[in-house]
Amino acid sequence: MKLNSEQLCDLAVGAAFLGTGGGGNPYVGRLMVQQCLDEGLTVEIIDPKELKDDALVIPTAMMGAPTVLVEKIPSGDEAISSLRRLERHLGRTAHATMPIEIGGINSTIPLVVGARMGLPIVDADGMGRAFPFLEMETFGVYGISGSPLAISDEYGDGAIINAVDNRQMEWLARAIAIRMGGSAYIAEYAMSGADVKRTAVPNTMTLAIRIGAVLRKARAEHRNAFDALLGFLPSTLYRYGKLIFSGKMIDVHRETKNGFSIGRARIEGLAPFSSVMEIEIQNENLVARVDGKVRAIVPDLICIMNTETAEPITSEELRYGQRVTVLAVSVPEIMRSPEALDVFGPACFGLKEPFTPIEEIA
Amino acid sequence: MKLNSEQLCDLAVGAAFLGTGGGGNPYVGRLMVQQCLDEGLTVEIIDPKELKDDALVIPTAMMGAPTVLVEKIPSGDEAISSLRRLERHLGRTAHATMPIEIGGINSTIPLVVGARMGLPIVDADGMGRAFPFLEMETFGVYGISGSPLAISDEYGDGAIINAVDNRQMEWLARAIAIRMGGSAYIAEYAMSGADVKRTAVPNTMTLAIRIGAVLRKARAEHRNAFDALLGFLPSTLYRYGKLIFSGKMIDVHRETKNGFSIGRARIEGLAPFSSVMEIEIQNENLVARVDGKVRAIVPDLICIMNTETAEPITSEELRYGQRVTVLAVSVPEIMRSPEALDVFGPACFGLKEPFTPIEEIA
Repeated sequence: MKLNSEQLCDLAVGAAFLGTGGGGNPYVGRLMVQQCLDEGLTVEIIDPKELKDDALVIPTAMMGAPTVLVEKIPSGDEAISSLRRLERHLGRTAHATMPIEIGGINSTIPLVVGARMGLPIVDADGMGRAFPFLEMETFGVYGISGSPLAISDEYGDGAIINAVDNRQMEWLARAIAIRMGGSAYIAEYAMSGADVKRTAVPNTMTLAIRIGAVLRKARAEHRNAFDALLGFLPSTLYRYGKLIFSGKMIDVHRETKNGFSIGRARIEGLAPFSSVMEIEIQNENLVARVDGKVRAIVPDLICIMNTETAEPITSEELRYGQRVTVLAVSVPEIMRSPEALDVFGPACFGLKEPFTPIEEIA
Repeated sequence: MKLNSEQLCDLAVGAAFLGTGGGGNPYVGRLMVQQCLDEGLTVEIIDPKELKDDALVIPTAMMGAPTVLVEKIPSGDEAISSLRRLERHLGRTAHATMPIEIGGINSTIPLVVGARMGLPIVDADGMGRAFPFLEMETFGVYGISGSPLAISDEYGDGAIINAVDNRQMEWLARAIAIRMGGSAYIAEYAMSGADVKRTAVPNTMTLAIRIGAVLRKARAEHRNAFDALLGFLPSTLYRYGKLIFSGKMIDVHRETKNGFSIGRARIEGLAPFSSVMEIEIQNENLVARVDGKVRAIVPDLICIMNTETAEPITSEELRYGQRVTVLAVSVPEIMRSPEALDVFGPACFGLKEPFTPIEEIA
């Protein structure tokens, strides 16, 4: 499939939704891809099934605090530098690139890389949402090494990291990303086509496009966009969604610490909701509580959206006074296995509550 | 020349002297080399003149805070990992290794690498003393790139860093060293034999051995070791030395911050010295002042020594109550050129005073 401008707009919206607050600003990423389309470049998205088993796929991404990204805008060449750096290190060339997460800018960075390098982009990712840490990949959960990882900045600096495990890779790469100014561009989890089919969350890029389209069409037809979206989800791998809160943003605490955007948002309920919902953030929305009781928890999606426009709001865009509606969505089974929860379940973020599927909480 | 145990002991003392407080604990490094000698391995030190112009020389070193090193003792394999990692990256094998600084453990790490890999060690280094930052190399002053740099820890983690300049290389590598636990092992400034002859401070390893021998023999013959050393220096490239203070250590402030040992030592004068000498430390001794007036300043050597034994005291071994004598020594001309002072003169450490050669201050 060759991406067009309308699909790109839908993708930016859908990826911001799936990004559950994180993954970086989708607007910046959309402009970068639009620039490629304007130059006549092709953005070719392929189904994982189309990959040969022995094809080499090298995912590409931004790494860093979303709060930094909106002030330190990438040129697009940084991620290409990393892909080339990793190719040189491996002594092989990539047949395709792929997102590591489907969220904000990290669903569009691979599109820029693919368009500029003439590579197809695989319609899949390794998180099925966004997560703050590089080890939180279904790729790693199901046995793929993230190392060697290539990292580059806008000045031409770069590194190759070979770590003993994916957590240590994250720990070392994060240090570099911080010293590169708080955001940097990476290529990692190089793997075969067979491994993509086995370990990736499939078809999340086209899912994001479809989510964007559902919201766009509902708005155009003056239907309730939240209802439209909740009606659409059961036909996808993200089969259960629920509107869990609606109200006014009364407090946003956010700081850029250790290379992450860390914070807490408080939403005062508007009828029929009462009380206050509190959402904990580490780049992404991790847990939503009302009166101390969990209403949704990672890895399920917690999506804060503009009540009037149904636009997803990423964590760096949260502001006092916004009217917001919170949707919670179940993630695919590949992301809820015991092995998966060991890598990106609540305990991995220091949360005390166990994972409870949103459909059980509701 | 094949190093023997007596020369090794002399080297450890002489390198602690030339290390001007830094370079890491010499005792740890000496034990590592002694272990190699005990195993029957050969430590072959060669003159830079013996190098073929097209030989590949890869220096090896410890990077980190000396305060960390004494608790996190290396196995010796870490630096070998880095050398091998850099060889793989370059696609070439080293003909020799070399110290990047002549100070403490960093004058002995290359001996371990050379002994275990069967490589000669070049009798030269890139600092002519010890400095806290990797860009502070005569190699870099005279045009050699420190990148690519390989860095490894004791667990098998590693990275290759390619930076746009040597300062940025230091900045990125330091972040990795900190996350590897505060000390790590590197291979960098890979260069040709011709470049070694052009940019290195020559014969500093044998100089350290000779300094150690001068102190040892003076003690054995009950002569004044300080006089013996000051009498010996004029026959070397470090041609001017002076005893600038003697007294009692009355205050040591030292912390491990941003990957460095940062501190300040205060010495109360004993006759014929009065007043108090204050020495600023960043891994190494940077400046010595009495009543706010500079008595010696980087890059000239400021060596704090035990008054009774004439043993050099490295910065992590400074203690309240020690009786100490401070020697200042001129460094070779290659380290005092305007280009050299731009890279490791006083301003590079945030010091306000200009460089004044010790022979002018005295």
